[in-house]
Amino acid sequence: MELTRALAHAFAQHRILITGGLGFIGANLARRLVEMGAQLTLVDSLIPEYGGNLFNIAGLDNAVRVNISDVRDEHSMAYLVQGQDYLFNLAGQTSHLDSMQDPYTDLEINCRAQLAILEACRKHNPAIKIVFASTRQIYGRPDTLPVDEKHLLRPVDVNGINKMAGEWYHILYNNVYGLRASALRLTNTYGPRMRVKDARQTFLGIWIRLLVEGKPFEVWEGQQLRDFTYVDDAVEALLLAAAADEANGGVFNLGSNEVISLEALARLLVDVNGGGEFTVRAFPADRKRIDIGDYYADDRLIRAELGWQPRVPLREGLARTLAFYREHLSRYL
Amino acid sequence: MELTRALAHAFAQHRILITGGLGFIGANLARRLVEMGAQLTLVDSLIPEYGGNLFNIAGLDNAVRVNISDVRDEHSMAYLVQGQDYLFNLAGQTSHLDSMQDPYTDLEINCRAQLAILEACRKHNPAIKIVFASTRQIYGRPDTLPVDEKHLLRPVDVNGINKMAGEWYHILYNNVYGLRASALRLTNTYGPRMRVKDARQTFLGIWIRLLVEGKPFEVWEGQQLRDFTYVDDAVEALLLAAAADEANGGVFNLGSNEVISLEALARLLVDVNGGGEFTVRAFPADRKRIDIGDYYADDRLIRAELGWQPRVPLREGLARTLAFYREHLSRYL
Repeated sequence: MELTRALAHAFAQHRILITGGLGFIGANLARRLVEMGAQLTLVDSLIPEYGGNLFNIAGLDNAVRVNISDVRDEHSMAYLVQGQDYLFNLAGQTSHLDSMQDPYTDLEINCRAQLAILEACRKHNPAIKIVFASTRQIYGRPDTLPVDEKHLLRPVDVNGINKMAGEWYHILYNNVYGLRASALRLTNTYGPRMRVKDARQTFLGIWIRLLVEGKPFEVWEGQQLRDFTYVDDAVEALLLAAAADEANGGVFNLGSNEVISLEALARLLVDVNGGGEFTVRAFPADRKRIDIGDYYADDRLIRAELGWQPRVPLREGLARTLAFYREHLSRYL
Repeated sequence: MELTRALAHAFAQHRILITGGLGFIGANLARRLVEMGAQLTLVDSLIPEYGGNLFNIAGLDNAVRVNISDVRDEHSMAYLVQGQDYLFNLAGQTSHLDSMQDPYTDLEINCRAQLAILEACRKHNPAIKIVFASTRQIYGRPDTLPVDEKHLLRPVDVNGINKMAGEWYHILYNNVYGLRASALRLTNTYGPRMRVKDARQTFLGIWIRLLVEGKPFEVWEGQQLRDFTYVDDAVEALLLAAAADEANGGVFNLGSNEVISLEALARLLVDVNGGGEFTVRAFPADRKRIDIGDYYADDRLIRAELGWQPRVPLREGLARTLAFYREHLSRYL
């Protein structure tokens, strides 16, 4: 409660830009910030295969300004960053497979557009505070578990390489130009408004869709270990990083209180759902070669430095997510 | 001698493409490969501020094919990689300051063009063997000395970030697509044919120019420690990495048998030259903020895995370099 009040104070009446603002995490963040009284601009490209969805901000009505444009549109971004107090920089190409099939698009979005956004901030709004959504994908296959921020980065796909560069542009502009920027390395984030149409971004989305549709789903490599962050917890981490000047120049893992195998996760999901079926199989070849094996984060740094902790247990988060899609699935297909 | 014979055997009659082939390291590599009987194509953009210089291959005459084009020219590169046995991928934007003033050009050359070259190899010549010239700049400010390949990468300028991505594209294409590629993280390489016109690429170049011209030169941060690789030793490392399949997917530091402060280096240079003057001063502000402090490499990995060792002592290398520029300085201004 104390934390919530302090955060609300940091953002009320402030002008805030969210790239990817109609996407899964962006829209959940927007909802929280609207409650806090922030003045929001949401930028989104609405590229059909990506995560942007106007239904994600249903009910926010006139409380936010929506600007449909692509982060690759440098002129649009140079205009939009002006006058903003905070930038939550969440827009990105997130599909690992797409990045292998079309590495240039991934490069343009995850590298060049990031540089352009930072250049725009440096030139037009150097007082802005930026939080960048990075990813644990950049670690590649872990040497040791859990993975902390001192683990080597050895990305296993083009997306991971480009996200690594995008993250480091932010840290560099913080260190060299005095822009205030930090990065969160998100692990598997899940919850209402995630993309569930297919497995392009996360397997958990398609599991949930098929379960709600009463169909069996497939679990690949059931013994693989993962951690999952409920979206409200990821949103709180983003807010904490934005509010705290101690975060500037920092890179922080997000994790979970629970580590679970994919097969156990599937069983838990079926249990929470009150029924459902799945089969376990090996990875398809095109996935196997960019797979990272077991992963779970050591997130003690953000807990210690920013006071973050995950609040929503996995069972509870899955229940909320299933409830959301039982009601709204048609809006996500 | 054994090593030289084995290497010559690996390359004689083979078709070899060198990007940046008219530059400092590329041209020295070309000279060695011509002696070995290789069939060479040298690609260079001859962008005036970069290192390409037709005088670098003076005397090679009809022994090499020169193709003037830019690695950003995807169509040119897609044609040129075809039918080649080896690619020494040395073309790059190397100025740290330029990368801060014009980050997009650095991105296009050091990231996008690298992806395009690798895509061209994957599609048109998957049997090619590639060696990429990476840089110790990607380590940023060392935590510990000497720096080995397990040290975290924390680049301090846009060039470092983009070179990090470029290096990883090579490793990724090796790991995922079975292209055979490795990367050498070069430290300060020096010798005949280096750029000496100004300090854009290395301070040592402008020191040598001013010394040969009989003018005083400036040493910034004289106590800073560095290591230096003579170009013939760097060339041998490139050849060893190309010839050895054990190098595939590997990343190797190059270093030196000697670590020296910049002020001691300046004194040594003056001594070898038989006279000269320099002054020591603090870093200018724009350099200071992207400076990495002391650096020297732990290069035991390439010594153990590929049998490399630096053969030319610093005093000897500096003497050869000064002798070259006493004769040819006008060709480099």
